[in-house]
Amino acid sequence: MRDAGAEHREAFPRTPQYDAANRMHGTAFPASLKAGGAHPPRPPCLTCLTCLTCSTATQPSLLSGPRRTVSARFAHATMATTKKARTHPPYELLYWPEIPGRGEFIRLAFEAAGVSYTDVCNEKKDGINEVLAIKDDKLTVDKDGNPPVFAPPALRVPGESKDGKSLVLYQTPSILAYLGDRLGLAGEDEIEKHWILSHTLTALDLNNEAHDTHHPIAVTKYYEEQKDEALKKAQDFRENRIPKFFGYFERLLQGNEPAGKGKHLVGGKLSYADTTLWHILNGLKFAFPKELEAREKDFPLLFETFYPSVQEHSGLKEYLASSRRKPFSMGIFRHYPELDRH
Amino acid sequence: MRDAGAEHREAFPRTPQYDAANRMHGTAFPASLKAGGAHPPRPPCLTCLTCLTCSTATQPSLLSGPRRTVSARFAHATMATTKKARTHPPYELLYWPEIPGRGEFIRLAFEAAGVSYTDVCNEKKDGINEVLAIKDDKLTVDKDGNPPVFAPPALRVPGESKDGKSLVLYQTPSILAYLGDRLGLAGEDEIEKHWILSHTLTALDLNNEAHDTHHPIAVTKYYEEQKDEALKKAQDFRENRIPKFFGYFERLLQGNEPAGKGKHLVGGKLSYADTTLWHILNGLKFAFPKELEAREKDFPLLFETFYPSVQEHSGLKEYLASSRRKPFSMGIFRHYPELDRH
Repeated sequence: MRDAGAEHREAFPRTPQYDAANRMHGTAFPASLKAGGAHPPRPPCLTCLTCLTCSTATQPSLLSGPRRTVSARFAHATMATTKKARTHPPYELLYWPEIPGRGEFIRLAFEAAGVSYTDVCNEKKDGINEVLAIKDDKLTVDKDGNPPVFAPPALRVPGESKDGKSLVLYQTPSILAYLGDRLGLAGEDEIEKHWILSHTLTALDLNNEAHDTHHPIAVTKYYEEQKDEALKKAQDFRENRIPKFFGYFERLLQGNEPAGKGKHLVGGKLSYADTTLWHILNGLKFAFPKELEAREKDFPLLFETFYPSVQEHSGLKEYLASSRRKPFSMGIFRHYPELDRH
Repeated sequence: MRDAGAEHREAFPRTPQYDAANRMHGTAFPASLKAGGAHPPRPPCLTCLTCLTCSTATQPSLLSGPRRTVSARFAHATMATTKKARTHPPYELLYWPEIPGRGEFIRLAFEAAGVSYTDVCNEKKDGINEVLAIKDDKLTVDKDGNPPVFAPPALRVPGESKDGKSLVLYQTPSILAYLGDRLGLAGEDEIEKHWILSHTLTALDLNNEAHDTHHPIAVTKYYEEQKDEALKKAQDFRENRIPKFFGYFERLLQGNEPAGKGKHLVGGKLSYADTTLWHILNGLKFAFPKELEAREKDFPLLFETFYPSVQEHSGLKEYLASSRRKPFSMGIFRHYPELDRH
């Protein structure tokens, strides 16, 4: 998990180069952050959205754009409030609004399992304040006895801590391990459970390396301030790291083919390792389209069986087609053509 | 988990600059890698030791230096073969020889728990071949049904898979989560267990960021080839990342003070989150001595209570004083004075 460092909450000036880069690269900047001259300073790495940290007090309009309420969400949502879902506690995802980011790994687990959850920042008008509260630099322990969160995403589970208090967990792999058991996405036994966690960690390493292609020096600096280094980092990532990771996951699928039929990394059913890897492949297709197009044929199980199978999975398919799925923009996966294969 | 990429097993030329840098910086190069003109090509990042991957066939002398056998180890070991230890399966750590690296997090868990294990590469003459076998680029599934390992460390547990076969796990946090339950280092209940995993993941993020200060562009390149970028990365690491992480861990200790007395991140007893964080602090003291000296006073619980308490813990204290504890050298934590505070 990376973040931009709360010590860098100071406003970062909006530069002409930054705006030009946005236009030139055709990246989708979150609509709620685009409106007019009252635009808050943009953070160097939107994945962390640290500008929101300092702008909420003075820029309430930032958070009052068109935002779904829970009921509105469920009016168009395709996730049924099934009996299964109703037996779960009221899970709450605490993550920045409007971007997939690292919150997406948690969302996909819920959506694949068909279990209801509240995406606090995307569903509650003042949800951002709840995210800020759990990572406040002064927090040592919250009223329910939870430790502070280093960086979002976090999962809050009302009623699941001691004496009926809320439990708060953070770190994507830890949240997935907790939810995996409860959502039926953690394998059939203890062994599969640990392999699923291991492969998820490897996929998340790939995720971090993808992030670092545009921020190799400092998350607190703009991409444009480290572009020379980014060009070098991206070249290594494309030429060495992508084939290494893809080759590894291809081999996992081959080894698990008797049970998984190329559709699952571990065992014979969907796990959070599958959803996690799928999202990263999806992000890489967005960020490095030429590189991926050139590579995919070398990993047929990964791209011809696994990838389409996961995105057709019940629950995921409907989510991915919905407006709840946020487009990639200026987060972990960014499309800078100069970082892609030429 | 990072590695240097098996696709880069080709020999890397030993440059005069590299040798000069080793001498100048006074870093302890593993003795077994130093001997004479038959020195194998050195890898860009020794943490990954990929040169061993290609050199074992042609450089057997590399692996035949003074190496403890299991019995020799226990002759001087301070870890008693207690009744507790004897009830455990014969755990095997599969990691590169001669460096702490990421294997150290696993070693510390065993040592703190007083539970016996075999450090395969450091105890068996041909142990390196066992590490190479589990991460072989052609492996899809091993004879016991285990998936390949992306990169060491791995844990092999004979008899613990189906039908009495060996279980193989990889990824440091996943291994620690598995062992934590079994070694009594994973907290008192399900909630503490997840917090311990979360904090461990955060500490390991700090570990990775420390590594990236000397390899910001590519693990397959020498430090000297990315020194300009390393200087920038290290500055950001020292000025922004170190205080952010230290501040977070200080707050965790404060919040847990009623139970942990400043000695433990979670609850009232040692966990693998404590041992993991301790090793990283120890590594940072080696790599950035001036920076740490200047910072420590700002984090009194972390450096005046937690740090000395963990290293005095029974089992750890004896291990740290023994020859089994490898010195830092050219792995994750490296002392390059130019990357430290000036």
